[in-house]
Amino acid sequence: MYRLYDYLPSGNSYKPRLLLSLLGIEYERIDVNIMKGETRTPEFLAKNPNGRIPALELEDGEFLWESNAILYFLASTGTPYLPAEPRLAANVMQWMFFEQYSHEPFIAVARFILMHTDENHPRRAELKDKMKGGYAALDVMEKHLHNRDYFVGDHVSIADIALYAYTHVADQGGFDLAPYPAVRSWLARVSDRPGHILITDH
Amino acid sequence: MYRLYDYLPSGNSYKPRLLLSLLGIEYERIDVNIMKGETRTPEFLAKNPNGRIPALELEDGEFLWESNAILYFLASTGTPYLPAEPRLAANVMQWMFFEQYSHEPFIAVARFILMHTDENHPRRAELKDKMKGGYAALDVMEKHLHNRDYFVGDHVSIADIALYAYTHVADQGGFDLAPYPAVRSWLARVSDRPGHILITDH
Repeated sequence: MYRLYDYLPSGNSYKPRLLLSLLGIEYERIDVNIMKGETRTPEFLAKNPNGRIPALELEDGEFLWESNAILYFLASTGTPYLPAEPRLAANVMQWMFFEQYSHEPFIAVARFILMHTDENHPRRAELKDKMKGGYAALDVMEKHLHNRDYFVGDHVSIADIALYAYTHVADQGGFDLAPYPAVRSWLARVSDRPGHILITDH
Repeated sequence: MYRLYDYLPSGNSYKPRLLLSLLGIEYERIDVNIMKGETRTPEFLAKNPNGRIPALELEDGEFLWESNAILYFLASTGTPYLPAEPRLAANVMQWMFFEQYSHEPFIAVARFILMHTDENHPRRAELKDKMKGGYAALDVMEKHLHNRDYFVGDHVSIADIALYAYTHVADQGGFDLAPYPAVRSWLARVSDRPGHILITDH
């Protein structure tokens, strides 16, 4: 059985948790509190030398980390969440790299700052740039989704799971999704799937 | 024939250029000068709505963007640069996501700041954090490579290409690789391959 090292409020942790639920795969969840430094202990660094959650322990005791690589692994054994056709699979990769480079560092980090600092904290100074970058990412998503149901092809994929994780809680980062009707419709389509769980669930 | 929209000094652009050369694939190169705003024109945004190079135009006129997704596409049609086994392929993804999240935003951005700003520029204030993050990434790489020839398995993969791109010019970002002997040996192994080109070549 897989063992997932995970912190419930983290959208990056939510990604594999959501896909495991959608796929109906049982797993053991180990809570790792990033706010208490539990990803920086020697024990955890032996699991992920980069000191981040999520990390997936496989049945032979080896570890896989990086949320989108875990999604890729779980989806790549004949599930509908990763297209077999190389070009469609590359499109899925494109949107997952977009998520980690142009979306998460803004929308997730803005949410983190608002959740974990008070109004006078120096990190609040980062919010202006985070807003700008986050809205730029939402603009790209809205434009792409205006005539599409999902990011790649006509089926939900791990690109949707990866982008859903922090977009659906973007309001907690101070983002207003009202001007993004295509994004809001897509969020509803993703969350309507059988097996869907909330970010607070497992 | 593929058409690559590319800016020579960019390590992200160098990734597909290097792999295309290693695979012996002919392509047309279109220079896009990011310093002159050429990725922000309506014409370029029609190719990549995220406004970044590299972008690969496929033979049917469709575009693929995100450097590591382009590597994935070029490698995924039966080349030795992407393992067929899902778990090894997931390990390749892990290191490519590590590159985009924990390596490039520090090492590539430090290089960009040093190459394009003078000593009194306000962006120089970012360098302290960039150094810290970049050395943390190099520490993870050194630890992983101390008993390995390549990042995944016993063969060079697109994980190596992705990480090579900015690591081999880390000195231009102010990083000293002297304390990283395993990283330096690995750089030499990657650059010794037939078909290797320099970042300034095409």
